[in-house]
Amino acid sequence: MPDMSAPRQRPQTMAEKILSRRGEQAVYAGDLAVVEVDQVMVVDSIAQSFIERMERDLNARPKYPERVSIVIDHVAPASTVSVAQAQKEAREYAAKTGVQLFDVGRGICHQVLMEEGLAKPGWIVLGSDSHSTTYGAVAAFGSGMGATDIALAAASGKTWLRVPDSVKVNLSGELRPGVSAKDVALEMIRVLGADGATYQSVEIHAGDRFTRGERMTLANLCVEAGAKAGLVVPGGEILTAYGYDVPAWVYPDEGATYVQEITIDLSTLNPRMSAPSEVDNVHDVSELRDSLRGLKVDQVFIGTCTNGRLEDLHEAAAVLRGRRVAPGTRLLVIPASSQVMEQALLDGTLLTLQQAGAVLGTPGCGPCMGRHQGVLAPGEVCVSTSNRNFIGRMGDKDARIYLASPAVAAATAVKGEIALPDDVREAVGA
Amino acid sequence: MPDMSAPRQRPQTMAEKILSRRGEQAVYAGDLAVVEVDQVMVVDSIAQSFIERMERDLNARPKYPERVSIVIDHVAPASTVSVAQAQKEAREYAAKTGVQLFDVGRGICHQVLMEEGLAKPGWIVLGSDSHSTTYGAVAAFGSGMGATDIALAAASGKTWLRVPDSVKVNLSGELRPGVSAKDVALEMIRVLGADGATYQSVEIHAGDRFTRGERMTLANLCVEAGAKAGLVVPGGEILTAYGYDVPAWVYPDEGATYVQEITIDLSTLNPRMSAPSEVDNVHDVSELRDSLRGLKVDQVFIGTCTNGRLEDLHEAAAVLRGRRVAPGTRLLVIPASSQVMEQALLDGTLLTLQQAGAVLGTPGCGPCMGRHQGVLAPGEVCVSTSNRNFIGRMGDKDARIYLASPAVAAATAVKGEIALPDDVREAVGA
Repeated sequence: MPDMSAPRQRPQTMAEKILSRRGEQAVYAGDLAVVEVDQVMVVDSIAQSFIERMERDLNARPKYPERVSIVIDHVAPASTVSVAQAQKEAREYAAKTGVQLFDVGRGICHQVLMEEGLAKPGWIVLGSDSHSTTYGAVAAFGSGMGATDIALAAASGKTWLRVPDSVKVNLSGELRPGVSAKDVALEMIRVLGADGATYQSVEIHAGDRFTRGERMTLANLCVEAGAKAGLVVPGGEILTAYGYDVPAWVYPDEGATYVQEITIDLSTLNPRMSAPSEVDNVHDVSELRDSLRGLKVDQVFIGTCTNGRLEDLHEAAAVLRGRRVAPGTRLLVIPASSQVMEQALLDGTLLTLQQAGAVLGTPGCGPCMGRHQGVLAPGEVCVSTSNRNFIGRMGDKDARIYLASPAVAAATAVKGEIALPDDVREAVGA
Repeated sequence: MPDMSAPRQRPQTMAEKILSRRGEQAVYAGDLAVVEVDQVMVVDSIAQSFIERMERDLNARPKYPERVSIVIDHVAPASTVSVAQAQKEAREYAAKTGVQLFDVGRGICHQVLMEEGLAKPGWIVLGSDSHSTTYGAVAAFGSGMGATDIALAAASGKTWLRVPDSVKVNLSGELRPGVSAKDVALEMIRVLGADGATYQSVEIHAGDRFTRGERMTLANLCVEAGAKAGLVVPGGEILTAYGYDVPAWVYPDEGATYVQEITIDLSTLNPRMSAPSEVDNVHDVSELRDSLRGLKVDQVFIGTCTNGRLEDLHEAAAVLRGRRVAPGTRLLVIPASSQVMEQALLDGTLLTLQQAGAVLGTPGCGPCMGRHQGVLAPGEVCVSTSNRNFIGRMGDKDARIYLASPAVAAATAVKGEIALPDDVREAVGA
């Protein structure tokens, strides 16, 4: 155990700041910290294990029920009797213990917690889903853990962890039209590498760029570099405009210690795409388009905690408006939450997508992890706005997954092959 | 074999008329008839068997590819790799043979064929789905068959069948507000019994009542009395208003022979509900509501080839407008087709449903046969607008399914228990 007896005065990273918040001492990278947890999130696919840990192993009830949420999103609506049974048990557990339950169709866990105000600047949020780094979009330390650690956090209200080293990611310049937060995130993963930030906190200095949704895309993908957390430093009035109270202490100090530092020049960034079967296998879309000309894309999927928000649907709709999905290509669009669905209904976005030939699905994770609603057959090719293109991720081990932005996904759907939005616009103009 | 050498002059039922259409002789109940088939419909779940019969057993290609349709609707989007593989093979078969393919999200087979003009008055339509009686809504002889018979029809362009006896169903009076075609259909099944019209043609004399969609509900449920076909006699300008050419010869003759005749007085009909676990276990909704007071309804499902059309969504929206689904009850709404989805987007119906807390799903069969998208857990209770409430139909064998109209389903969703629309309206007024 490191010496935690004396308060320390060295400058701190954002992760160090947040993990020091409720301790009596300031903690630094490498320290073991025991911290209060503000929200514990459990998804349907882990709910049975979580309940078993709580009731059989720990013989405990949640210490603070209001700090525990169960979200039914991974396979919703239920696809089998055993899935239905697990979800039923989750509902019964929630009713019995008073923890919050977000049922079928409410949406993807990270999106729902964000919409419900269950992640706030300076908070510590643990989730039973690897993309729990997403909460870093609002300067919350979000991290994914397994059922046992999650149960311990729910039972005790606390967790312990080694304070991570931090990586500083600087963004410079401004994005060109047609380039989005997803492209920035993929470029970041390419530069860092799939294990380049293992157990580190990726601290993204984005200035006042990006909406909350776009910040979620950035924080979400940090785990694909192996990160423990992904924190987007609040800039300007970005978060206060969404109603968040951003405490002054949450910002990283000048002179804090980073184990690595990278800079991404947004002004030169082109649309990016991860080719099978690693997220860090990132290329320019134009390069893959040219080298893979003639490769039929069977399925395009727009959705997930990475890119299923209103901004993303707008980006796709801008490309799809007045156009049609190519024959032989399926375009699945699954809004990240019921709120996103409702907004997209209200502003006409869903109608645009529907009229272009998109197939809408129930808000939730959709086919992202290959458990239902768009599983891929052997040999099929998918362009997806999701976050993982591993072998077998969305179905058969011989399916291939390319990760891209909603705009590129939409253009690909229209073309039936990998395409940039400009390719589609030109095709119509010709 | 009956003697088919001499033309006959006896009056004919509608089934006899249609099955005589292309023969050289008039045929009558009991005759064996070999008839040309106008459309053969294959659904995704039977596609592999169909292809195997065609290619391995018959070594044949479809004689008239334009008369064969494959619809991917039963488990769409695909829920497993093997389902995805079967759907991929169906696509490849369609591309190779030139048969029509309606892919994921286009909608439920019967609805899609109707929208695509692939069922017309006087036609003979065979489908690999039991509810192929639905085509009787437009005075087509629709019937369900297994993969082998379907393949023989596709390969030869013909089928053989024993001409069915006919049941005459007379409707008298007019429906009261809040009572719908579904209630008429359930009452008809109650009177006939689940095996009361086995291998018979149910000929419904509806006059000029009911839209095409409502007629589909009536014809659809005929198979639940065991019928070979369900024919709704065209009345007034009902079908011509939809653009159909109704040949004069299609109408049944005065004096045709019926093995049974029933009359339903619409003016006294109350909303009806089939209780578990037979479709003909039909009761007044008010009776079940009172006897089952306190029974929590876990899931309400509005959709299917029986009740997933625009009329049905309107009926549900009228009840749900300005109200919310009860806590602890899930309301799934799955439009029958992409056209229904688009119309419901355009006229605001989907927004109404979404704002009431409905969970929307991809057009298709949904959880009707318990294969995905809303499978029931042990002990769960479901009120559904679908057509079968058999043990295990929508998931676990210990789940209970009650069948009702969209209005009753919507009221039940608001109440969380079996309810009539008036119960909900009163609750708000109070």
